[in-house]
Amino acid sequence: MLQYQAPMRDLEFLLFDLFAVESEWRDIPAFADFSADLVRAVVAEGGRLASEVMAPLNQSGDREGAVWAAGSVRTPAGFREAYRALADGGWFGLSGNPAYGGQGMPKLLGCLVEEMFWAANTSLYLYGTLTVGAAICIDAHGSEAQRSLYLPKLYSGTWSGVMALTESHAGSDLGIMRTRAEPRADGTHAITGNKIFITSGDHDMAENIVHLVLARLPDAPPGTRGISLFIVPKFLPDAAGNPGERNRFAVGSIEHKMGIHGSATCVMNYDGATGFLLGEPHQGLAAMFTMMNYERLSVGLQGLGAGELAAQQALRYANERRQGRGPGMSESEKGVPAVGEADLLVAHPDVRRMLLTVRALTEAGRAFAMFAGTQLDRGRYLDDADAQALSELLTPIAKAFLTDRGFECAVLAQQVFGGHGFIREWGVEQIVRDARIAQIYEGTNGIQAMDLIGRKVLRDGGRTLGRLLARMRATPVAESYRAPLAAALDRLERVTRTLLERAPRNASLPGAVATDYLDLAGYAIYAWLWAWMATVAPDDAFGAAKRQTAAFYFSRILPRTLALEASVRGDQAAVTEPLRESL
Amino acid sequence: MLQYQAPMRDLEFLLFDLFAVESEWRDIPAFADFSADLVRAVVAEGGRLASEVMAPLNQSGDREGAVWAAGSVRTPAGFREAYRALADGGWFGLSGNPAYGGQGMPKLLGCLVEEMFWAANTSLYLYGTLTVGAAICIDAHGSEAQRSLYLPKLYSGTWSGVMALTESHAGSDLGIMRTRAEPRADGTHAITGNKIFITSGDHDMAENIVHLVLARLPDAPPGTRGISLFIVPKFLPDAAGNPGERNRFAVGSIEHKMGIHGSATCVMNYDGATGFLLGEPHQGLAAMFTMMNYERLSVGLQGLGAGELAAQQALRYANERRQGRGPGMSESEKGVPAVGEADLLVAHPDVRRMLLTVRALTEAGRAFAMFAGTQLDRGRYLDDADAQALSELLTPIAKAFLTDRGFECAVLAQQVFGGHGFIREWGVEQIVRDARIAQIYEGTNGIQAMDLIGRKVLRDGGRTLGRLLARMRATPVAESYRAPLAAALDRLERVTRTLLERAPRNASLPGAVATDYLDLAGYAIYAWLWAWMATVAPDDAFGAAKRQTAAFYFSRILPRTLALEASVRGDQAAVTEPLRESL
Repeated sequence: MLQYQAPMRDLEFLLFDLFAVESEWRDIPAFADFSADLVRAVVAEGGRLASEVMAPLNQSGDREGAVWAAGSVRTPAGFREAYRALADGGWFGLSGNPAYGGQGMPKLLGCLVEEMFWAANTSLYLYGTLTVGAAICIDAHGSEAQRSLYLPKLYSGTWSGVMALTESHAGSDLGIMRTRAEPRADGTHAITGNKIFITSGDHDMAENIVHLVLARLPDAPPGTRGISLFIVPKFLPDAAGNPGERNRFAVGSIEHKMGIHGSATCVMNYDGATGFLLGEPHQGLAAMFTMMNYERLSVGLQGLGAGELAAQQALRYANERRQGRGPGMSESEKGVPAVGEADLLVAHPDVRRMLLTVRALTEAGRAFAMFAGTQLDRGRYLDDADAQALSELLTPIAKAFLTDRGFECAVLAQQVFGGHGFIREWGVEQIVRDARIAQIYEGTNGIQAMDLIGRKVLRDGGRTLGRLLARMRATPVAESYRAPLAAALDRLERVTRTLLERAPRNASLPGAVATDYLDLAGYAIYAWLWAWMATVAPDDAFGAAKRQTAAFYFSRILPRTLALEASVRGDQAAVTEPLRESL
Repeated sequence: MLQYQAPMRDLEFLLFDLFAVESEWRDIPAFADFSADLVRAVVAEGGRLASEVMAPLNQSGDREGAVWAAGSVRTPAGFREAYRALADGGWFGLSGNPAYGGQGMPKLLGCLVEEMFWAANTSLYLYGTLTVGAAICIDAHGSEAQRSLYLPKLYSGTWSGVMALTESHAGSDLGIMRTRAEPRADGTHAITGNKIFITSGDHDMAENIVHLVLARLPDAPPGTRGISLFIVPKFLPDAAGNPGERNRFAVGSIEHKMGIHGSATCVMNYDGATGFLLGEPHQGLAAMFTMMNYERLSVGLQGLGAGELAAQQALRYANERRQGRGPGMSESEKGVPAVGEADLLVAHPDVRRMLLTVRALTEAGRAFAMFAGTQLDRGRYLDDADAQALSELLTPIAKAFLTDRGFECAVLAQQVFGGHGFIREWGVEQIVRDARIAQIYEGTNGIQAMDLIGRKVLRDGGRTLGRLLARMRATPVAESYRAPLAAALDRLERVTRTLLERAPRNASLPGAVATDYLDLAGYAIYAWLWAWMATVAPDDAFGAAKRQTAAFYFSRILPRTLALEASVRGDQAAVTEPLRESL
């Protein structure tokens, strides 16, 4: 009974009112031809595919699950056709390189399309996001021959992509991986090793599956500086670029998981498989990070999509289900509600608190993701180093904060349903199960937090964050938001300065406070976005809802930053000393 | 691979050092004979049953699930024998009335035993907790004949108990229920109606199943004041008190759920079933609340148990799994960790943050539950009205705060496992799925929050809470905790005063802030318990761990009250006005 509708009105607002893409894109030559009408057509068609083709398979896909049988993976009924619809519509090449069949659309647009696809069917879109990511990686690091061969196949979804990093003993720690790559006389490499948690490692939806595999060359230095990246296709391309000989790798099994049942999470055994070096020897991790940075933002969008899907279910249920009396009735009236007299759930303030929390976090999250998209576009198409640095700062926040808040929203929406939220039939419990993985994979959210504080803030002395703060402060906002927004931004700056001062003297400090610091940054940025959105929102019913949610955000959500500041600035001895065992 | 060990050292500390039960019980004549040795024996045997009999069936019960076939429910393999071990050990009658075969043990002891049973196997213990609760209700409201007939059967687990409240249109709103009770000439009633979400509605572990069913008599006034309670056994007792004729009700189906798969959640159809009035006509809701108040604390203990189980898994994993380098290594060293050189997860401060959060919330939760138990005992056995009022104040906090924090702990423990946390094999994802229901059933946590603020705080003008505050302030604590504890308690008092002033002028206010207010109360009480525990803890390794966790609680968790105060005291217009629709 999960239903999904693309949030068209909000997208329209964000695209044209808030981010004013028509003027934004006028500055970027590659986008100069994109009209508002074209953008609207793309969004409408993406939304249609999401709600009409992908969403109807979401619950059935969860129930059926991906099945591993006779050595290969069978995806749930309908996935194959839906994947084909996405492929044929050109969606995997939306932001792809036009020289090889991509559509060259802005990342900003890609962000909002991906949110819809994730929301509609997370398991199904996982096959897609890895295809998009593999293409990005090959476009950035491949030879001309590799790009010519693989990109058109990936953009068209004829072939699909896979990222193969994790080994059973090497999860977050890629430096200790063992998979080997032995050079052969013909220039190819023999890849041997076992990988786990390989999403989409096998399936039945594309004629070929292109694995990007991290492995060590014989002369590799130890650690992360000795890792190389290889293209390892399931079927080796023949001279005409068609799938030929079956490569020497196989699925060992697939995992049984809490959620994303329709997605095949594979154990892969590479047994002297033929691999083609992608990029330079020993530079594989950096190359793979091209893909991972895309995937991290994309996984953030998964969290956002989960929140939106959950929000839609909870709002609908709260407007249909009658239970109890809202406040304002006398005690005696409260005692005698006949069936027809019970009020809608939405009449209860505590239910509105949950709905408004979900809305406040989801709508700000959407604006945040699109802001990150604008910076990626500027970095890439204008060679704007500041925008590039800013997008790198925003990536770990997008991955962790969007997924943590997405999970929070899914759990809150489930709570609105009461007991029905726990029952499979209604589908909201699936949203919770599916959303949970987004906080874990693509680098756990703890790793994102350490990336933010270490590599993105401390390393450049807070300069990129300072530029972001300046930009946020320069945004004109309505009078009523000025003081609380300034306080939130001052708080983020103050905490950052403290960390810059204290971190050099305490190596354990950044890790100890990383998660709270990332959350603080996220809530401060959302405050900016809410103040900005409330200021720009039109004077109609849509705008009134925006302003209500903005007011809610400032009075009920933003106070979380008080706790986070105190937590980060407090005494950290209990965390930085070794853990004392209590048993 | 879930493993569970009873937290014996902590229980020993809480029983004898913190709550000094030997002197506490000396004041209560009914407990005067209980020696420390007896208590230790009870706890040890309960812990053994939990870890050796119940825990090994936790994952297999989840996989197999309860199955509805041929009109009745089959429980997972092993459940029957484990239930029998609990029954034969007298555990369902632990705190039961000695006049009818109960053991008359303190509720305080019941709390810690229940935590162990919930932790070891939530689905299995659900069959037990409803048996205990049904006995409590019959003991309080039954006739002498009813008590003589049912209590020995329930205490011995020969028969089991069920609570049948919910109807499909009446979840939280019992006032609109429709099930009818028609008086018959023989003094019995014919019960007709459909109930949903009936936990343990049918199973194969006891020779009879005693349903306590809420229904309306023909002359019932509308609303909650027209509900009566009936004993509706699956098999009608014959003259000798043995199961006789099959009663006219049946299982319509069982639910497929997110978790607690081993627990049968039944749709029940009562079709002119024979029921025996329990207590007075139209007073059924009050009678059922005797059972519900027990179940609410018990469900709080479910949340606590989930947190403890999760904590044990995460701590073990963090001490076995090696990933990356802890802080303090140079950059070049960080780059080259060979396999043997990777550090344990516990070396990472962000992992310690998660482990300490789980520990801080779980250990305080255990002390909190036992404190609630002491008040229940004083209220019941000393006719202490203040203790009774305090236990009523603590009940909604115990239900909601223990289950919300238990879920938080389960999710954090899952995060420590990284990708393995999402895989069924490891079992932590099951803890998350099982823990989630505790926030929903037995009155959603939102309903608990409204109960706290409305019935337990505003209604008596904050007097009971004031007595609790006085008691907490009177506890001697070490110098370093005095100021921060005083600040936390002052904050709770200040916020309460604000609500007492503002609520009469704004009917929507209590509901708007109820959840945050409950959380604020919970964190303030935990601050008291942590300060007290750190002060009393011995000067050994156990005490050092307690003090580390206490320090962590004050620096990293307690700051959440800053956010909650600001949230409750802030402008509530956005929540108290109707929800504006944004689409």
